[in-house]
Amino acid sequence: MAKPDNLPEMEYRFLGRSGLQVSAISLGGWLTYGGHVDREGTFACMKAAYDCGVNFFDCAEGYADGESERVMGEAIRKFGWKRNDLVISTKLYWGAAFSDRKINNVGLSRKHVIEGMDASLKRLGLDYVDLIYAHRPDRHTPMEEIVRAFNHLINTGKALYWGTSEWDADEIASAWRWADKLNLIGPLMEQPRYNMLERFQVEREYAHLYREVGLGLTVFSPMRQGILSGKYKNGIPEGSRFAQTQVEFIAGFWKQTGKEEWQAIIEQVKKLEPIAERLGVKQSVLALAWVLANPNVSSAITGASSPEQIYENMEALRVYKKLTPEIMAEIDEVLNNKPPEVMMRFP
Amino acid sequence: MAKPDNLPEMEYRFLGRSGLQVSAISLGGWLTYGGHVDREGTFACMKAAYDCGVNFFDCAEGYADGESERVMGEAIRKFGWKRNDLVISTKLYWGAAFSDRKINNVGLSRKHVIEGMDASLKRLGLDYVDLIYAHRPDRHTPMEEIVRAFNHLINTGKALYWGTSEWDADEIASAWRWADKLNLIGPLMEQPRYNMLERFQVEREYAHLYREVGLGLTVFSPMRQGILSGKYKNGIPEGSRFAQTQVEFIAGFWKQTGKEEWQAIIEQVKKLEPIAERLGVKQSVLALAWVLANPNVSSAITGASSPEQIYENMEALRVYKKLTPEIMAEIDEVLNNKPPEVMMRFP
Amino acid sequence: MAKPDNLPEMEYRFLGRSGLQVSAISLGGWLTYGGHVDREGTFACMKAAYDCGVNFFDCAEGYADGESERVMGEAIRKFGWKRNDLVISTKLYWGAAFSDRKINNVGLSRKHVIEGMDASLKRLGLDYVDLIYAHRPDRHTPMEEIVRAFNHLINTGKALYWGTSEWDADEIASAWRWADKLNLIGPLMEQPRYNMLERFQVEREYAHLYREVGLGLTVFSPMRQGILSGKYKNGIPEGSRFAQTQVEFIAGFWKQTGKEEWQAIIEQVKKLEPIAERLGVKQSVLALAWVLANPNVSSAITGASSPEQIYENMEALRVYKKLTPEIMAEIDEVLNNKPPEVMMRFP
Amino acid sequence: MAKPDNLPEMEYRFLGRSGLQVSAISLGGWLTYGGHVDREGTFACMKAAYDCGVNFFDCAEGYADGESERVMGEAIRKFGWKRNDLVISTKLYWGAAFSDRKINNVGLSRKHVIEGMDASLKRLGLDYVDLIYAHRPDRHTPMEEIVRAFNHLINTGKALYWGTSEWDADEIASAWRWADKLNLIGPLMEQPRYNMLERFQVEREYAHLYREVGLGLTVFSPMRQGILSGKYKNGIPEGSRFAQTQVEFIAGFWKQTGKEEWQAIIEQVKKLEPIAERLGVKQSVLALAWVLANPNVSSAITGASSPEQIYENMEALRVYKKLTPEIMAEIDEVLNNKPPEVMMRFP
Repeated sequence: MAKPDNLPEMEYRFLGRSGLQVSAISLGGWLTYGGHVDREGTFACMKAAYDCGVNFFDCAEGYADGESERVMGEAIRKFGWKRNDLVISTKLYWGAAFSDRKINNVGLSRKHVIEGMDASLKRLGLDYVDLIYAHRPDRHTPMEEIVRAFNHLINTGKALYWGTSEWDADEIASAWRWADKLNLIGPLMEQPRYNMLERFQVEREYAHLYREVGLGLTVFSPMRQGILSGKYKNGIPEGSRFAQTQVEFIAGFWKQTGKEEWQAIIEQVKKLEPIAERLGVKQSVLALAWVLANPNVSSAITGASSPEQIYENMEALRVYKKLTPEIMAEIDEVLNNKPPEVMMRFP
Repeated sequence: MAKPDNLPEMEYRFLGRSGLQVSAISLGGWLTYGGHVDREGTFACMKAAYDCGVNFFDCAEGYADGESERVMGEAIRKFGWKRNDLVISTKLYWGAAFSDRKINNVGLSRKHVIEGMDASLKRLGLDYVDLIYAHRPDRHTPMEEIVRAFNHLINTGKALYWGTSEWDADEIASAWRWADKLNLIGPLMEQPRYNMLERFQVEREYAHLYREVGLGLTVFSPMRQGILSGKYKNGIPEGSRFAQTQVEFIAGFWKQTGKEEWQAIIEQVKKLEPIAERLGVKQSVLALAWVLANPNVSSAITGASSPEQIYENMEALRVYKKLTPEIMAEIDEVLNNKPPEVMMRFP
Repeated sequence: MAKPDNLPEMEYRFLGRSGLQVSAISLGGWLTYGGHVDREGTFACMKAAYDCGVNFFDCAEGYADGESERVMGEAIRKFGWKRNDLVISTKLYWGAAFSDRKINNVGLSRKHVIEGMDASLKRLGLDYVDLIYAHRPDRHTPMEEIVRAFNHLINTGKALYWGTSEWDADEIASAWRWADKLNLIGPLMEQPRYNMLERFQVEREYAHLYREVGLGLTVFSPMRQGILSGKYKNGIPEGSRFAQTQVEFIAGFWKQTGKEEWQAIIEQVKKLEPIAERLGVKQSVLALAWVLANPNVSSAITGASSPEQIYENMEALRVYKKLTPEIMAEIDEVLNNKPPEVMMRFP
Repeated sequence: MAKPDNLPEMEYRFLGRSGLQVSAISLGGWLTYGGHVDREGTFACMKAAYDCGVNFFDCAEGYADGESERVMGEAIRKFGWKRNDLVISTKLYWGAAFSDRKINNVGLSRKHVIEGMDASLKRLGLDYVDLIYAHRPDRHTPMEEIVRAFNHLINTGKALYWGTSEWDADEIASAWRWADKLNLIGPLMEQPRYNMLERFQVEREYAHLYREVGLGLTVFSPMRQGILSGKYKNGIPEGSRFAQTQVEFIAGFWKQTGKEEWQAIIEQVKKLEPIAERLGVKQSVLALAWVLANPNVSSAITGASSPEQIYENMEALRVYKKLTPEIMAEIDEVLNNKPPEVMMRFP
């Protein structure tokens, strides 16, 4: 499918308190590239995204056992894109292959951070990434060691900025404490889940960090893996992953969600349909637009298995500007999960 | 009532990562002294506590508009206790009299911290307190100003250690960041609510801080204002404060609890009765013992309106040592509110 | 004159990036108290201001050779105002009496800063001031000595915050450099002239400092010593100070203004008359409101020789909220002195 | 044209408070090399300059879209000059090709500073430059990020010293603040415009920085793009760039200069003719000599499209020593733009 004519212009946002600009919509390889989307499909998606103005492509050593990095690196070379026009990320923690002996190939020890970075760059075929993330907190490795290891990557030119993914707010603050103590660079950005159904961490837990350390957010799962697109509104098909109990590790907790809870969520999501209709957009676009409307979000990482999805998502750049306070309040009422105000000063 | 003969010895615990020791059970003036408990009653309670080995007496400028500090200071002079045998605390934030113009008489500005401290010491009739707390976070005052102001109190000899009360975990981490940056002293202790019904903050939110900064805890409300003592098991009397909807500000949120929720809580609490019976203690003692069983708790601040209550509470020092893993698991099952494990390292 | 009934409520603003709140309109002793306004007149003005909600009273050792501090201190005692409800400032640089031998009684040497502070506190009859200003830059005294001296005042409890008056932007930045180097407290606020006719320093020169160091402003001369009130619209009377050439030291320069230039300014000011009329206010009120409309202004220091003027000024709190972007643009066109935009990032 | 016999010896000056010496007259590629001066012409100019003792050659990524760096680098190789005899500079900010996607190819983000440096070195064919400049302030990128990025270039051996061009004085002071805070290297030199018609920034705005941080100056545009050479004394030819309104961005402002203003400037410049005649030199030489007479100027960067101009400029090294206080006063009277004295201490 060719790029439609009337797509809105891409918007670029500063990544937290930094001079780096990332496209408000970006493309991630999680659960897709190197996995169920094949090479040609990956190339087509990345090209479509690039043509729409996406400059930020998100990877991780752990996505598809390293295959995601390999195929996304291949695309960059194939299309001859200029390195300086791109913002490429990867993440370290899980190692690149579950078949590896795990002892020192997982976590945030200096050893794995350095070895993992080199292996990622090799798979990507790049000299450096723009963004390197600690893919999870590692509470066995002292914070000093973690902060020093990521600064080592920056000092040796293998990465330009570092950040975290799914860390607790006080762990991010502690990382800054160590960075300051050692005159090193603190973590610039977090990569949390953020969508209409998962709001607490972004809207409340991290609230002080935006002004305190200038934290930027590159959020993932804007559509809650499809739930928010409304595609399950007629029920969850047997065999779908939502038909089984899911156990996810979210923000430091293992959380179980069973079929009944999914069903309740789906009922709730249905109530967003009329709002999307009134705005004249698909529910998936409304979900993405809602994420973009949060000014602390630097980029919303989308997954896509076809160029069509990418073109469709672009619409959210137009829609989020139409989300008036009244509409936002209406959505909050449906969702019923808005974290209460953080008090600034008492009486 | 005279002190019973067979009370257990007081236990002293280090306050977080410091060299200061506080009695595991301490006495606080909140909602009692300077308020509905009269002068003679206050003196009797303080004397009973002191005789039981309590060395830590907890106050705040905001308790009873400063009257709590006045009467507790009077008791100290009256009984001629040695200053060095006591650990006296107070807290700054709310100001001492709600009739004041509020502009600079509330919050954690350098102005209020210094002026508030002087006024508190005057009311207490002391040259210094051992512990000074920031009674709430003040998100309008920069963290640097707050950290510097509390260090000024320490440097001028008006307080020996400083801490916080009901701060978010990342705010405590940020305070340490600033303290380290400026070569100043960080907050040593937090004063949160902690009891069988309110566990999240102590058991999960602050979890990293115990090892990261050596945070000590002086917890309050161990019996959830009486609910956990089982005294409402036959229903909430009309006119009691639990008969109305309560609005409390807890850990940064306004939280509403209505009568029906109280009723549900009371039903749950009833199920603890057999466990208390098996241990041969009152339910209130079990509740306090359960708090003391958490090794991160340096001191449990109790309120008391009669010496009897104080003597009774002492029993918890014996009981908490009988709380085997099996009993704790049984209690967790009843409570059904145990925060999930914090993962140290994934797979 | 009694306080009129319908005055607006006082507004309080945070002083730069601090937790201290000052009344948006404040009262200063320059050219009035201790000088041509007598004791009773001073008392009347201060009382009227206090009753209007003014909490910030501004002094300097150099105002009326120290008499301003004496009489303002007397007023505070006379009315029995609570110290914590007040924000009292003074300024050091000029010494308190021109008849003194000047060698070490002027400037910002450690000697004069410490000796001057003690003398000021004695004249004021206070233990401490809230705000202490370096009344001018002193380029003979090393910045390190200045920063250390003002921190000494704070550390010894004689002042709560320190700032500058009529310093160059890079001198303020240098003071912060030394403060950071030495882990000391940087200057929180500047006291520049700011009015419709003198905009460059506040709107352009200090522009980076608001976000870089959180600089607060307590501005003086909001009516350009009466010119902006329109009272000279029929010409400058012989004998008035505007009839002679004035030589003023402004922002590091000696600046001459002769009678003809005053005349031109007066012509320009006349063009503001219709705007004031349309808003239904006196020109002086418009001038003050215009100053309050700048969000970087924490407080506008007014001079007053009668309660009437104070009541009249209060009106500006209502008026500044009516200054729409359209009206501001109209005023800018008349003034023709708006500093151009500071570029954030080029093309 | 061969080098004349009687040229004065080159003079070398320390670059600010550093151990590096630069020729007082240097050669820059702005508006000439890589642009309207062809390769052979560039080689001839550079050879002539080198033979006169010029050791400092000034470039920027943005000059002629990178072509300036390419041709100047080629000259260095062609003539086989020893690297250690040369002081080579370049500047980062504008990117090297206006056809690039601009998002991260402009400004002072860590990304552009590092990527831009590598691209510049490649174009120059060098392993390192001696001086790297931030070609403009970037108010979107935090100062910490900028200071760290330029230090990264120094730490990785790609540059020896770093500085700024057309920054505000307080921005330079802020950069030093961050450098000190982080134990990093501050900006050594500024590259402002400086000539008889543009004096404020060098003579007044930066005044404190010479002693405060030892700021060195490499000034450009000593002849105000030819105006000061007197070549337009008979009027501005149609089609010349002075015949149109110029919009320039100077020291943070967009400034418009129209034809009439140019005409007035030319009239004023004419009055310098008799002074030049009395000294027996061309007006262009007087203009350059006047710049060299300022002891805060480390090097005056000249542009030249022929060796003749370079030889001619050398004369200024002799002439500036003849500029007595009387002659300087006479010039000041003609120019009527001398910034007033910065007061060191009042009365």
